[in-house]
Amino acid sequence: MSAIKIALFGLGTIGTGVADILLNRHEHIRKVTGHDILLARICDKDIVSQRDTYISPDILTNNPDSIFNDPEITVGIELIGGIEPARTFVLRLLENGKDVVTANKALLAEHGAELFAAARQNGRTIAFEASVCGGIPILSSIATSLQANTILSINAIVNGTSNFILSQMEHGGTSYSSAVKEAQKLGYAEANPAMDVDGTDAVQKLAILAQLGFGAAVNWKDISRMGIESVDAIDFKFANDLGYRIKLLAVADVGEEGLELHVAPTLVKFDNPLARVQDAFNAVRVVGDYVGSVFFQGLGAGRKPTASAIAGDIIDTVLGRTKITFNTLNLWKDDKEVMPIKRSDNFYGKSYLRFDAEDRPGVMRDFAAVFSEKNISIASMIQHEINTINDNSSKQKAVIILITHESREGDLLAAIEKLEKIPSIQGKIIRMRVQD
Amino acid sequence: MSAIKIALFGLGTIGTGVADILLNRHEHIRKVTGHDILLARICDKDIVSQRDTYISPDILTNNPDSIFNDPEITVGIELIGGIEPARTFVLRLLENGKDVVTANKALLAEHGAELFAAARQNGRTIAFEASVCGGIPILSSIATSLQANTILSINAIVNGTSNFILSQMEHGGTSYSSAVKEAQKLGYAEANPAMDVDGTDAVQKLAILAQLGFGAAVNWKDISRMGIESVDAIDFKFANDLGYRIKLLAVADVGEEGLELHVAPTLVKFDNPLARVQDAFNAVRVVGDYVGSVFFQGLGAGRKPTASAIAGDIIDTVLGRTKITFNTLNLWKDDKEVMPIKRSDNFYGKSYLRFDAEDRPGVMRDFAAVFSEKNISIASMIQHEINTINDNSSKQKAVIILITHESREGDLLAAIEKLEKIPSIQGKIIRMRVQD
Repeated sequence: MSAIKIALFGLGTIGTGVADILLNRHEHIRKVTGHDILLARICDKDIVSQRDTYISPDILTNNPDSIFNDPEITVGIELIGGIEPARTFVLRLLENGKDVVTANKALLAEHGAELFAAARQNGRTIAFEASVCGGIPILSSIATSLQANTILSINAIVNGTSNFILSQMEHGGTSYSSAVKEAQKLGYAEANPAMDVDGTDAVQKLAILAQLGFGAAVNWKDISRMGIESVDAIDFKFANDLGYRIKLLAVADVGEEGLELHVAPTLVKFDNPLARVQDAFNAVRVVGDYVGSVFFQGLGAGRKPTASAIAGDIIDTVLGRTKITFNTLNLWKDDKEVMPIKRSDNFYGKSYLRFDAEDRPGVMRDFAAVFSEKNISIASMIQHEINTINDNSSKQKAVIILITHESREGDLLAAIEKLEKIPSIQGKIIRMRVQD
Repeated sequence: MSAIKIALFGLGTIGTGVADILLNRHEHIRKVTGHDILLARICDKDIVSQRDTYISPDILTNNPDSIFNDPEITVGIELIGGIEPARTFVLRLLENGKDVVTANKALLAEHGAELFAAARQNGRTIAFEASVCGGIPILSSIATSLQANTILSINAIVNGTSNFILSQMEHGGTSYSSAVKEAQKLGYAEANPAMDVDGTDAVQKLAILAQLGFGAAVNWKDISRMGIESVDAIDFKFANDLGYRIKLLAVADVGEEGLELHVAPTLVKFDNPLARVQDAFNAVRVVGDYVGSVFFQGLGAGRKPTASAIAGDIIDTVLGRTKITFNTLNLWKDDKEVMPIKRSDNFYGKSYLRFDAEDRPGVMRDFAAVFSEKNISIASMIQHEINTINDNSSKQKAVIILITHESREGDLLAAIEKLEKIPSIQGKIIRMRVQD
């Protein structure tokens, strides 16, 4: 049994976890695969700092060429993150005849077509289970076990940071900003959590799920996106009264006019398993025409769960399972029939709206007229005087909460634009999606 | 592209579902796999009755030899169920150079070693995702995505019939027997539901999970088993008061002395996702040392979900993924290091006990003495006069509910034996496991 030499780029949190599993579980992996998988080289800018796992200085390098040019290395693991130099490194690995394993959702969501074309051209493969939902085997399940199904919808909580923040707000009754601070303190959010809380991370993962589940070729920047920054502690109270929890949901849903794709804070009914996903957990609900609804939940981030997924991909690559899957799926391939993406104007669903209004006669008539004009009917409404919520505010204001019946998103946005111009309605109208 | 011919044995509910997906989704499967997978022949004793899916009489046969002897058929699907003739047919398929796909948990749990040896000897493969939890991709996830992990535990609801009955009892407050009738009416239970409610089906599936997750070679008949027949409507009330739901759990748990395997009605804490699995759903919670806890939920039975899993296996077999997995897993292989199975006497855990006792001074002292003697300490106790539960009973009786602290199962059973001999304790002592 000859050793299979692999190399790793990026020795941050995840990279150290992957080094740990490959070095310390080497014998276990040899037993279950029959292969001696050897971490031969690790490339990072910083080869001086100590990491949590002991790594022999002999395998550390800050020269990527020493990997690209080593013909004995057959698999490269890209854990640098971001676009550059990750993109260049992946291309160079492929051009030099090495298979790639990556956890980089941003890179795939932006340059998937280019990278997969390069892999095909060089007869190599790219495995990327860890790029969506960390340790949850969601990509392989869609790509293999569920492959005889036509996938009808994917609803997912793919960003653990946002879910942790929303859970803190729900259970602790804390404000958005103190929940963010708590998440930062516990290591669930970075110093700048913008990409997590504004939905960018989630749309990048949704773009990958959409390609895999529906063959949809979509730039993540074109996916309808709302973040959680405007969610307020009072929204949880109102949602709870109406039988919902609030989750940042990534949704891909097949309709007659094509695929509806969006990421948004969403009111999810109590009895939906997604409503019960707490803290930093991720979860995915896939509906297939034969299998029905299948629900997956697990840790979507963190050193060890992500290392589990990457090690699974490395083994699949070494054993040849990745090659088979890569060749049959033909992801991001030019000549593939692609599913059309629905314009967000034509999305159709229920919405939750919250806004402040002057608490005087005639105000409700004003906004009711706007909804009526735009063909939006109201399913339920709660009006709270502001002083029942925050005693420091002016007593003249009321908080209005509405849930609409199903309506066209274009109509709703037109109504919101008009409502925000009514003088008795104060500030912005906060909008979330509603899923029953 | 030449057609790949496959054959199916058994045209019952599941067989008809598989015929349906292969015949009606032929083009979809061709697109996602690049192969023209042709259902060339179906063998059943009954080739006359109409099925829900149109099947050309040309492919129907009641002569299995016409399949064994057809060199063009490369894959055989065994959906007969039970031991014979399924076992003989699988062996003959393998001997005749055909790969096998099966959903038959009883066959694998009883003859796994023989069948896998025959497959290896003939250079063929056996795929069996549908044998455990129908449409949920649990076996492939353990076998591939989670393969770098050491699996620490598997807790699962693998029998939809029992879960439906328990759900009915919990929500409807109905008796066991009327819940069984309701399950039969809706098609969730067979006329004779013994194998489902006594835990036989669940231990067979657990034996397969134990082999896959832990390399444990265990005869399903040796697995500790309790059924749900003794669960009473009042147990749900008491469990609820104490913060639990009641589920038939299949458990495989690695400890220092080996693997603990059992199937039993179990009190599961509200916040455990397994507690929330309702109706005929199945669910599995796998804990791996790197991935942490991963939870899967879906439909574990029924025509379409099972057909989804079988079609996935057929595709994996045709593409060659099954071959790779089969060769590396070495399931049921003689010379493999096997994990020792813990004797049930040495299981260690909390228990729920319910029994009727005379409601008079001194009774509690009597049974408290037994627990003390056997080293079992009581975590909580509820005593209800029987007339608060059932007005028709004698008013002299009380129902006693106990939850023990962690204790050795051998000690507990000795205590129960002794308790049942105390004259003031009436009838059998009902026991369930408790999982916090």
